[in-house]
Amino acid sequence: MNWNGKTLKLSVFGQSHSESIGMTLAGIPAGEQIDREELQRFLDRRAPGRTPWSTARKEPDVPEFTAGLEGDCTTGEEITAVIRNRDRRSGDYAAFARTPRPGHADYPASVKYGPAWDNAGGGAFSGRMTAPLCIAGGLCLQLLRREGIQVISRISEIGGICDVGELNESTAEKSSPVVDDTAGERMIAAIVEAKAAGDSLGGIVECQVLGLPVGLGGPLFDGLESRIAALVFGIPAVKGLDFGAGFEAARLRGSENNDSFLVREGRVVTESNRCGGILGGMSDGMPLIFHVAFKPTPSIALPQRSVDLERMEETELRIGGRHDPCVVPRAVPVVEAAADLAVCDALLEGRKERSPWN
Amino acid sequence: MNWNGKTLKLSVFGQSHSESIGMTLAGIPAGEQIDREELQRFLDRRAPGRTPWSTARKEPDVPEFTAGLEGDCTTGEEITAVIRNRDRRSGDYAAFARTPRPGHADYPASVKYGPAWDNAGGGAFSGRMTAPLCIAGGLCLQLLRREGIQVISRISEIGGICDVGELNESTAEKSSPVVDDTAGERMIAAIVEAKAAGDSLGGIVECQVLGLPVGLGGPLFDGLESRIAALVFGIPAVKGLDFGAGFEAARLRGSENNDSFLVREGRVVTESNRCGGILGGMSDGMPLIFHVAFKPTPSIALPQRSVDLERMEETELRIGGRHDPCVVPRAVPVVEAAADLAVCDALLEGRKERSPWN
Amino acid sequence: MNWNGKTLKLSVFGQSHSESIGMTLAGIPAGEQIDREELQRFLDRRAPGRTPWSTARKEPDVPEFTAGLEGDCTTGEEITAVIRNRDRRSGDYAAFARTPRPGHADYPASVKYGPAWDNAGGGAFSGRMTAPLCIAGGLCLQLLRREGIQVISRISEIGGICDVGELNESTAEKSSPVVDDTAGERMIAAIVEAKAAGDSLGGIVECQVLGLPVGLGGPLFDGLESRIAALVFGIPAVKGLDFGAGFEAARLRGSENNDSFLVREGRVVTESNRCGGILGGMSDGMPLIFHVAFKPTPSIALPQRSVDLERMEETELRIGGRHDPCVVPRAVPVVEAAADLAVCDALLEGRKERSPWN
Amino acid sequence: MNWNGKTLKLSVFGQSHSESIGMTLAGIPAGEQIDREELQRFLDRRAPGRTPWSTARKEPDVPEFTAGLEGDCTTGEEITAVIRNRDRRSGDYAAFARTPRPGHADYPASVKYGPAWDNAGGGAFSGRMTAPLCIAGGLCLQLLRREGIQVISRISEIGGICDVGELNESTAEKSSPVVDDTAGERMIAAIVEAKAAGDSLGGIVECQVLGLPVGLGGPLFDGLESRIAALVFGIPAVKGLDFGAGFEAARLRGSENNDSFLVREGRVVTESNRCGGILGGMSDGMPLIFHVAFKPTPSIALPQRSVDLERMEETELRIGGRHDPCVVPRAVPVVEAAADLAVCDALLEGRKERSPWN
Repeated sequence: MNWNGKTLKLSVFGQSHSESIGMTLAGIPAGEQIDREELQRFLDRRAPGRTPWSTARKEPDVPEFTAGLEGDCTTGEEITAVIRNRDRRSGDYAAFARTPRPGHADYPASVKYGPAWDNAGGGAFSGRMTAPLCIAGGLCLQLLRREGIQVISRISEIGGICDVGELNESTAEKSSPVVDDTAGERMIAAIVEAKAAGDSLGGIVECQVLGLPVGLGGPLFDGLESRIAALVFGIPAVKGLDFGAGFEAARLRGSENNDSFLVREGRVVTESNRCGGILGGMSDGMPLIFHVAFKPTPSIALPQRSVDLERMEETELRIGGRHDPCVVPRAVPVVEAAADLAVCDALLEGRKERSPWN
Repeated sequence: MNWNGKTLKLSVFGQSHSESIGMTLAGIPAGEQIDREELQRFLDRRAPGRTPWSTARKEPDVPEFTAGLEGDCTTGEEITAVIRNRDRRSGDYAAFARTPRPGHADYPASVKYGPAWDNAGGGAFSGRMTAPLCIAGGLCLQLLRREGIQVISRISEIGGICDVGELNESTAEKSSPVVDDTAGERMIAAIVEAKAAGDSLGGIVECQVLGLPVGLGGPLFDGLESRIAALVFGIPAVKGLDFGAGFEAARLRGSENNDSFLVREGRVVTESNRCGGILGGMSDGMPLIFHVAFKPTPSIALPQRSVDLERMEETELRIGGRHDPCVVPRAVPVVEAAADLAVCDALLEGRKERSPWN
Repeated sequence: MNWNGKTLKLSVFGQSHSESIGMTLAGIPAGEQIDREELQRFLDRRAPGRTPWSTARKEPDVPEFTAGLEGDCTTGEEITAVIRNRDRRSGDYAAFARTPRPGHADYPASVKYGPAWDNAGGGAFSGRMTAPLCIAGGLCLQLLRREGIQVISRISEIGGICDVGELNESTAEKSSPVVDDTAGERMIAAIVEAKAAGDSLGGIVECQVLGLPVGLGGPLFDGLESRIAALVFGIPAVKGLDFGAGFEAARLRGSENNDSFLVREGRVVTESNRCGGILGGMSDGMPLIFHVAFKPTPSIALPQRSVDLERMEETELRIGGRHDPCVVPRAVPVVEAAADLAVCDALLEGRKERSPWN
Repeated sequence: MNWNGKTLKLSVFGQSHSESIGMTLAGIPAGEQIDREELQRFLDRRAPGRTPWSTARKEPDVPEFTAGLEGDCTTGEEITAVIRNRDRRSGDYAAFARTPRPGHADYPASVKYGPAWDNAGGGAFSGRMTAPLCIAGGLCLQLLRREGIQVISRISEIGGICDVGELNESTAEKSSPVVDDTAGERMIAAIVEAKAAGDSLGGIVECQVLGLPVGLGGPLFDGLESRIAALVFGIPAVKGLDFGAGFEAARLRGSENNDSFLVREGRVVTESNRCGGILGGMSDGMPLIFHVAFKPTPSIALPQRSVDLERMEETELRIGGRHDPCVVPRAVPVVEAAADLAVCDALLEGRKERSPWN
């Protein structure tokens, strides 16, 4: 499970039920100070049980760095971090290998890896694998901050309930993942209701990157959209992504969609930001804005129609256990981590492009 | 401008005004027969002036293969193809380096590459650079066809006018890029109207991949969504992408969005296809479906507000010349090419994963 | 510190004085059983204090696998192994940063990394870093054995004293690193004498790979010589490498050097093996043979002429402490590890080259 | 046929009998001026028929650049150059596929690629494939010169006849490939004699890199020896390589082999240069020196013993046609090209290592 950026390379390893999970991140320069507490705070945002948004409780994930840090300083080598898996249940998934859960990886995984897919690689299809992604993103975030770059986000929609107001530097400072707390309370109520009904909800996350220099990225696959997309669509349950006005832009005319250039305080800005801060794959100095659509959690208590793969006959499936009825609140820092990685990759490249011969 | 798949690697080179443009594609196995005429027909779909959908006329782009083919057969080495640029205008862009066109790469490119950005790399921010992408996709397509895989597409929306009916194997066989010809005529009329008004239109392309084996792709960044996204967002003017129900899925409940499994003719299928044929990043055997949002062409004849970068003052910009008022019709094969590359990459990897030791 | 093979990729991390050292090896297929005891026995051969060939004593290096193994079975992901450094002296090297030891990395390291080079990366210029290389080689060795491939070696020369007799499958089975024990005793005596004199010795290691299928490798940089060389010259103190008759072949005529083809027991063999089992970069089915020249340990007790880099004036240097007067005995398994990696890389590639489409 | 440096990547394509051969070189920065005439002069040194050292005559190889150059200036993209093969004989090799030439790739190639190996990839086992390597090296050479780095070389031995005198900046300026012309005449006479006898000769090339900054390279596989070795052993017929005192160093004591540091004209130098200008894998500012052993040309007119692979019985082989009785004179610029690439790769990396964040 590798992501190869232009300057950074991320490898995520392990499975939800293996001894440990972790990540190796190559390309971070030597000499970077890493604040481990700040990193832990970032990781804790992904952990369950921290807010009214989520009910389950669990110990925090604490990464151990086995390579790439000397004290708190990067050595320039590949950074490897490992998280031990505390509760390693096995056998839970045997039933799903036979009767796949709708909306889950069960069916294609059992075809790809065989009936014992959960041990053979299928255990990597789990939200748990976003923890290593957050470690990598959290490391990049510390480099970005030193460059004056900020990554902010909010839940813009859950179960059809929209957040109200605009996300920006000041509204992002709240501890809540929404701008409007009334909207937030309605979202929480909707999650509680869906759970009680044995059902689940999806939603949309908005993410912004502030403080970008102009000209990060490049043409075609070097563009910021392409880099962010490769990471964002690697997050489980993501089914859609757009930048700025996005799908709505497809319905506008050029005269409506183009963002006029203005001069403000001696700097070039755009009047509107329908391009989401990206022109020709490059940052234009305005906030980079994108939206990520998450499907509703496929694990629901309601009975569903599935297939007994052994007998090849249709059957009814009931999934027991407690399930997170909406992954969106916990996914917010994961989306940020994807942005952290993509932007840091582009920023590091920007510097490398200069010819050393001049 | 490189795309690094898991097994395929694509490098696109040149600029719209350089002597030639082209591509190098690494990873295609040896011994593949390439039908050059079929490839040319695929490339011709991108060329302007072929249909009522587009007005300008131009000679076709004919690639010359300088490496990787021996006769019509791949050698297993990197394949390099070159297209000579016939009309190489220079100097057209000097004005835009000073007064950037809204919605274009002009402004960030001039910051990144300097005022002479058009010669220094900025010439790569051009729809013309999708021709090499189509060469690469067209080569992959020939491998896919031998495996029984088909890539089909249609314009699902232009300027807010939606195509009617369902895209499938039979509706795709028409020469028209829409399912419903009446809708198509309305789209053409809208394009003509927008052009007359000095304005432009955006739109949405739907693409499907049929005949995929179950289990292509993998967890996280190895997933099909991530691979397709990295390529699709590399196409100029793309601002959104979603799979299956996509953004709409974010508003559904789990019980509404999950696709039930059924047995039909001894095979596992899903009753609906809201997941777009992808579960856990892997193909589930149903049609892989995605939608791509294109913004309206930023070059419009209407006057726009911009900035004179030399004087740092606001100014009005009028763009002369003839411009394609809607890139969507020509973008259809480009979207297919992106899908061809991503799927071929996953298919080749699928085979490589097996341990040679068993 | 990365080696990129065609199918395997090795990253070695850490420094002799950091908390830990280790390696990440990518490309080993899933499902390989690893015998940890066998691996440890291989690593112990590199450790000092095990034989009369070396005097110092130390605890063994025991690797901890933090990723890539589930139980004793490879998962197909990157394998990361870490060795904790038990005695981490610091400050020993400050003097050498000012007055570099002749024959050592001290001088260029202090120019490259600055006066504090020992902490800033210079600590990687140490024989200790061959331990991770041996982990990687020891893993590959287990795969090779299952394919009937054996890697054997001997000290063919130390301080001008040559081993007698021929290295082959039966002479390699002895626990001694030489074929002729009398020669071995003379080598040990020479090492003891050099040490007493405050001096050091170099030597030559011969390595053979037996049981190779015909056709491994390929033209130019894909050749076996090129792959083995990139790894062997990565071992500290190596200054020469040749294959088969090697430098001697440069003095022979074609009629003397060419190995005639014969048929023996229905198989094609060569009468002699001056090509070292490699023709055109590919294995020819005969033993692959190469020789590696190690320079004498540069750390000697005798006074040497050096330069005080601060004052920029010449000075006499006396190096205290106990030093291994000859690295050759401990280098034998390291040379084997290099061969293990190179051959395993070629073997895995051999299988991957086949078109999956046929 | 790829070489992956740390910053440069070279892909050589084609076969001796294909329509064209060529190379793609990635990693050369944008904005480098390429002097095409100087490049051609470098390539001409490899071409036959230019000196008394070689008899055959042929048209020069003129590369066509199909990508990566705009005018004479590099664009920063991959550079592709193609040489058309003028005389494409086919069928010559069918006999050798059945009765392999001793010392040639014929036997393993026929096992690896099948009886039609000459068309299926075996045609890449040819000295002709060093022409693309020289294009790549010749490009790098132009970058090195601008940095004050020079690559010089000489034939130090042919058929046991040694060149006399020392290679250095002034002796390298002669048009002859030896320092001592009397030795050179004896070498030519030996080649003429060997040819008349239906036999062939091998030899040794010495190569030096002058003007290197201190600290290029790094530990383990990042070392200069490892990088140079991977390229040098990619040259057909190379069987040995050593640096500085090389194999001879293995027979010296530390006190004899260590190079004392001195101060001369305010700079640190070494009194001797037995380390070949490399300490700990890094340049130490003295001339980098290495020697390359070439085996005698395996194609000889004298009858040889081989095997009829179809009947699996031993037979006598007589090779007709004219053959170069000694490849060493033509190999001199190829060895330089390998050095050019390795050193340019290290030099570019040296600059990239600096953290962009400071």
